[in-house]
Formats: sequence, structure tokens, C-alpha cells
Amino acid sequence: MKSDSVLLLSGGLDSCTVLGIARSEGLNPVALSFSYGQRHSRELESARKVASNFGVEHVIVGVDLGKTGGSSLTDANIEVEHRNIAEIGTRMPSSYVPARNSVFLSVAFGLAESLGVSRVFIGANSLDYSGYPDCRQEYFNAMEKALNLGTSDAKPAEIRISAPLIRLSKKEIIQRGMSLGVPYSKTWSCYEGGEKACGRCDSCILRLKGFAEAGYEDPLEYREYPEFYTDFLKKR
Amino acid sequence: MKSDSVLLLSGGLDSCTVLGIARSEGLNPVALSFSYGQRHSRELESARKVASNFGVEHVIVGVDLGKTGGSSLTDANIEVEHRNIAEIGTRMPSSYVPARNSVFLSVAFGLAESLGVSRVFIGANSLDYSGYPDCRQEYFNAMEKALNLGTSDAKPAEIRISAPLIRLSKKEIIQRGMSLGVPYSKTWSCYEGGEKACGRCDSCILRLKGFAEAGYEDPLEYREYPEFYTDFLKKR
Repeated sequence: MKSDSVLLLSGGLDSCTVLGIARSEGLNPVALSFSYGQRHSRELESARKVASNFGVEHVIVGVDLGKTGGSSLTDANIEVEHRNIAEIGTRMPSSYVPARNSVFLSVAFGLAESLGVSRVFIGANSLDYSGYPDCRQEYFNAMEKALNLGTSDAKPAEIRISAPLIRLSKKEIIQRGMSLGVPYSKTWSCYEGGEKACGRCDSCILRLKGFAEAGYEDPLEYREYPEFYTDFLKKR
Repeated sequence: MKSDSVLLLSGGLDSCTVLGIARSEGLNPVALSFSYGQRHSRELESARKVASNFGVEHVIVGVDLGKTGGSSLTDANIEVEHRNIAEIGTRMPSSYVPARNSVFLSVAFGLAESLGVSRVFIGANSLDYSGYPDCRQEYFNAMEKALNLGTSDAKPAEIRISAPLIRLSKKEIIQRGMSLGVPYSKTWSCYEGGEKACGRCDSCILRLKGFAEAGYEDPLEYREYPEFYTDFLKKR
């Protein structure tokens, strides 16, 4: 079956939910992941498993963002912060990778242009997020315009960026995904690698908060849990 | 000496001239090159030599644009076209790499943000060019806006894209570069690799036309020459 779109798939909860949504709409996206110098390959394994689960083609592109520096996700000398839930979103965390979504969207537009398709999906989310500037709708609108100007005028149609989760909370994302059968046990959100998720980084905290609020237990295993989540488990 | 800007350096005539211009203005850019799956590494060697000639730091970032397909420059199964000078610019050539400048500018903005600098140089040129959509001023304006939205609000200043060659002809670029001592013998423009430039691809044709019009002999060696260039040599 011919691909009809490109979907940025990190292997995390959000992008895997977007894949579930796209499949539920009858679409057949090419899943696009990046090996960008992240600390661990766990999320790429997750992306592979989830792409396979949904029966879509999966392309992994190498891009060495470790060379541009400045992030705890690509530089082993910078520590991943552990913040409590009230601090998340108040300032830029060390996990921010400069211009990451710009690079990913640019490659996605290149692939879309090569394939002759006109839709690019991204799992960005502006509510329950870490405060990254490249997750804002205003940014996506500007990138869509710029990237269309930078691709061939001969393409069949303007390429559109779809960010179906942009205004959803983590709770709503998880409820949507659960209803679509997204295999959350195969996803990976933690900034660190290892057998079990850390339960302490921004990404683990936001994920567990989302599951607790959605009223579901997270099928992933964690090394430790924040108090709000153990409270939720007790009250079930 | 601390770097004050980022400069996209392909190793070709245009970007090397931009480096000469930046140095003549007293700037100290970090030269940024890409290993993006091009057919040959000859232009990366040229970039290294020219960066060294001008005494600037040189960073090479790997990004696997071969995976996104569609170009004779990254796919050995697609042939580099040989067109005559009248055809160049009339339609998109097979050498077009989808979204290449978007990827390069995104990485450059990431590096600029990490370094805390607010200027990104690119050697794009909209007159004597191959008809690529990502070499237009309108595109650069839109990318500048989008990429600033996608980088931290805490950065010292908006990052500006400088394309000092955008409205110059190849003739004017070469005249400018010769006056600044740009080592054109170290640059590489040919789409093919090898000991000598082919003298037949769009890039060789535009370069030789520029040298002929500027009234200088090209110091590079070619396997063969187009008639207009041998005529120019005879008339000197």
C-alpha cells in the first residue's frame, strides 16, 4: 500500500498516539525517526516496535545533533534534571535540544516532497510539556510556510503540518490512545535509558501524571514513582 | 578567539567567498559543513582546506539525507544531468536535494543558539543558480522567522540569516572573492568527484561562465571545457 503521509515517530507516548490516530483515519504514514545522538537507543527500539505494531514503514535517519551541543539529551556531560511537577514548564530544562524540531520537520518535508505526499504529522503538545519553544502552534505555522517556500513549486500541493495533540492535555492524549489501542507498554518516554524508566525526569513525571489523571495504570515499569502516582494507585 | 557567528561552508565557490567576506569584516565564524550522503567527499576536503586557510573553527555534522531520496547528489541510481547553459534554471534539476537548506539552516540555528551568537551566514545566490527553491530571499525571510520562534526566547538576540551573495551574479561573486584573496584553487563546485572537475554539470558550467565573465582563469583543473570557456581562454 502506498504511503500517503510522513509521521515523526520518536517512540514516546505522544507520537505513538498520533500514529494510532492516523491509522484510525485510514491513513498509511511512513514513520520517520531520528538517531540524533540521544543518550540511549531505547526510544528508537520503541519506535520500531510501535511502527511494526501498526504495520507502517519505518525510516530512521541519522543526524548528529550532539555536535551542536547544549543539551543533556545529547551531551553526557550535562545532567538530566529532576524537577518536581510545579517546576516543569517554568523555565527551559537542560533536556532542550536546540532546533531539534526544526531539523526533524525539515527532513520530514524533504521526505514528503520525495514521496509526493502533502501531510506531515508531529506529536507536539503545548499544554503538558517541558516548555520547549519548538512545540508552539505559532512556530508550526511559521515553519509550514517557510518549508513550503523551500520545497519545489512543482509539488502536487502545499505540505501541511498536522499536530493533532497540540491542544490536548496528557490526560486527554492517553484517553484517546487507550480508546484506539495504542500499545503504551511498547512506548518509551524517559530521558534516561535502562531496563526501567526512571520515574523522576520531566518526561516520566508528565507521563505518570497523565496516566493518573486519565484513570489508567501506566503499563511501563519504573524504578521509582512520584508520590502523586503511588497515591493514585492506592485510591484505585 | 571566541566565535561570533555560524557560517555554512560547503567547500564550493559561493560559501568560500562568503567566508572571505566575513573575515574581511573582522568576524570569526564557526564554519559548519555537512556530511549528508553526497556522492563524494571532495567538497568536504575543500571546506576543511578553506576553513584552515582562513583560520576558523570547522565543524562537520553528519545528516543522512540519502534516506529521504530524490536527488542525483545523494542517490547513485539517479544520474547527474549535463545540460547546456540555456537550460540551467528553466526547471528543477536532478541534483536538487529536497529541503537541504532547511536542514542545514535548522542545524546552524541550533549551533548558533548553543554558542549564544546571533548571525548565520549562507552562500546562497538567486541569480546564477540551478533553480533551487531554497535559495530565494523570500524563503530565507520565512525561515529566519520560523527558526527564531523555534529557538529559546531566552537567547541574547534574534538570530539573523545573512546571505551576502543573494543578489550578485557569479561574475560579481568571483570579482569580490578575488579582491579578498579567496583561495579558489582549494574550492570544489563539481557535482561529481574525482581528480578533476567534470566541466559539464550545472555547477561547473555556472562556475566557468562566472570566471569567464569576471575575466579570470579558473585555477581548478577540469576534465573538459565548454566551448564558451575555451573561446574565453583564446581571447585573453
